[in-house]
Amino acid sequence: MAQSEIEAVRALLSSKPRPVGWPERRKRLDDVGSVWPVADDVELAAVDVNGMAGEYSLVPGSDPSRILMFFHGGGYCSGSIRSHRRMVSEAGRAAEMRTLSIAYRLAPEHPFPAAYDDALTAWRFLQNQGISAARITIGGDSAGAGLAGALINRLRDAHEELPACAWLVSPWMDLTMSGSTLASKDAEDPIIHKGYLNELADAYLSAGMNRKDPRVSPLYADLRRFPPILIQVGSAETLLDDATRFAASAGAADVQVTLEVWPHLIHAWHLWNAHLEPGRRALARAGAFIRRHL
Amino acid sequence: MAQSEIEAVRALLSSKPRPVGWPERRKRLDDVGSVWPVADDVELAAVDVNGMAGEYSLVPGSDPSRILMFFHGGGYCSGSIRSHRRMVSEAGRAAEMRTLSIAYRLAPEHPFPAAYDDALTAWRFLQNQGISAARITIGGDSAGAGLAGALINRLRDAHEELPACAWLVSPWMDLTMSGSTLASKDAEDPIIHKGYLNELADAYLSAGMNRKDPRVSPLYADLRRFPPILIQVGSAETLLDDATRFAASAGAADVQVTLEVWPHLIHAWHLWNAHLEPGRRALARAGAFIRRHL
Repeated sequence: MAQSEIEAVRALLSSKPRPVGWPERRKRLDDVGSVWPVADDVELAAVDVNGMAGEYSLVPGSDPSRILMFFHGGGYCSGSIRSHRRMVSEAGRAAEMRTLSIAYRLAPEHPFPAAYDDALTAWRFLQNQGISAARITIGGDSAGAGLAGALINRLRDAHEELPACAWLVSPWMDLTMSGSTLASKDAEDPIIHKGYLNELADAYLSAGMNRKDPRVSPLYADLRRFPPILIQVGSAETLLDDATRFAASAGAADVQVTLEVWPHLIHAWHLWNAHLEPGRRALARAGAFIRRHL
Repeated sequence: MAQSEIEAVRALLSSKPRPVGWPERRKRLDDVGSVWPVADDVELAAVDVNGMAGEYSLVPGSDPSRILMFFHGGGYCSGSIRSHRRMVSEAGRAAEMRTLSIAYRLAPEHPFPAAYDDALTAWRFLQNQGISAARITIGGDSAGAGLAGALINRLRDAHEELPACAWLVSPWMDLTMSGSTLASKDAEDPIIHKGYLNELADAYLSAGMNRKDPRVSPLYADLRRFPPILIQVGSAETLLDDATRFAASAGAADVQVTLEVWPHLIHAWHLWNAHLEPGRRALARAGAFIRRHL
């Protein structure tokens, strides 16, 4: 990649002091995620997802009958349809299908099980539209990838149909924070640090909840019968170990796993695809993976 | 996949008692690896690789100026050009290039550093042909993948040019046998068990050598500046953990890594690609990976 591109993103992220407090953090993620707008040919449509806000995106030539349902990241406490609009709409272009972004409820106002239940509500919404599970893929980044894993685990436990595949970017899978890269990559990662993750986990977990509960930490779930999974992670991430350990655990459970480690890239770098060639390339790889499985 | 195909391979592997002794083991791997012949359109040519036996393969339409150099598996004690001919020639077809199989020296007659030095000799042979490193990919399965990792580590340490990419199938990367799947997958794996690996390691290692020496256990090497790596492993393998741990370690060292875990497949299943659809599919994925990087 052009080294200057990732440096420009790092400069963007460090151009202001780290925000303090939930409103400032939310504004910040919305701002840095939407610094480049969606492409001109993306058609957006707001949708009421059984009481939650949702948004469809579709580009010309894509199949509106197949859906990439996406859960944004932001540590269960921030992130929005807006912050991830560019990433999600370009993922839909690469996968050649419609996307549906979900504005699940955020902590600390709405701790577990709010987001966990909202993910199921979103899944039910699509089922009620008559869209078969085989035409749906679930995607997410960071906490949104954790939410995607938790939803699939819940559906599998209930012996329900599962999405055709899952796409997980920089997944946050272990709220016990036991990954070794939390320390070894701390100096390199411009976004995610252990203290911040602890704040997020405390905000999301309900009182007395075990951090190893697979409903919040899918690393500790029984992953048998999960659909094929693509995991994409950057090598400059404190959460690298969450990705590699989840890949190993899913593989040992006879799940079809593809893990991609992208050198020197940072947490959820796809967000900045407009001016980051490896972001576009990662989206293209994800799109090809999804198309192979739908 | 058609379940009957992998069952047929398992039946082939269990149709005779496990062989005892090196000559019997070598004959056995040659027999099961060559039970299906190479395709009719494969052109084979024996070549003297600075004193070692080698074999080129080429199919019509492939590029003879680009080379997949392949190190066969067999625990450093068995395996041959013959046992892996079908796998290697079809890999060359998928990668659209020439292959070069290397008959490196085997233990126990030739312990370390014989194979390790032979791998370097093979690399030098291609350099002396005037083939630039950027037109070479290195592949290997099992111990051959370990040898490939050891060679790349050696070249990187010597600040030499590196191959464009590496393709590792069911790699044996840790002669200390510390992977947890050695126990958890023992009942499922029809080929590789810890006792057998210990025999192989004892045969290969030179007197007093540490099993963590990165020249025999690339899991413990510094993997920085390795070229892009594709690792393919089956979920029914005792060596699954060698693959996932090597992927994690290479990723943490900023190497571009793709790890694929193939559900229910067994050690080096590509060998039986003639009658195993996931073998053909895995070769196709490897070929696409290699073509992207050359």
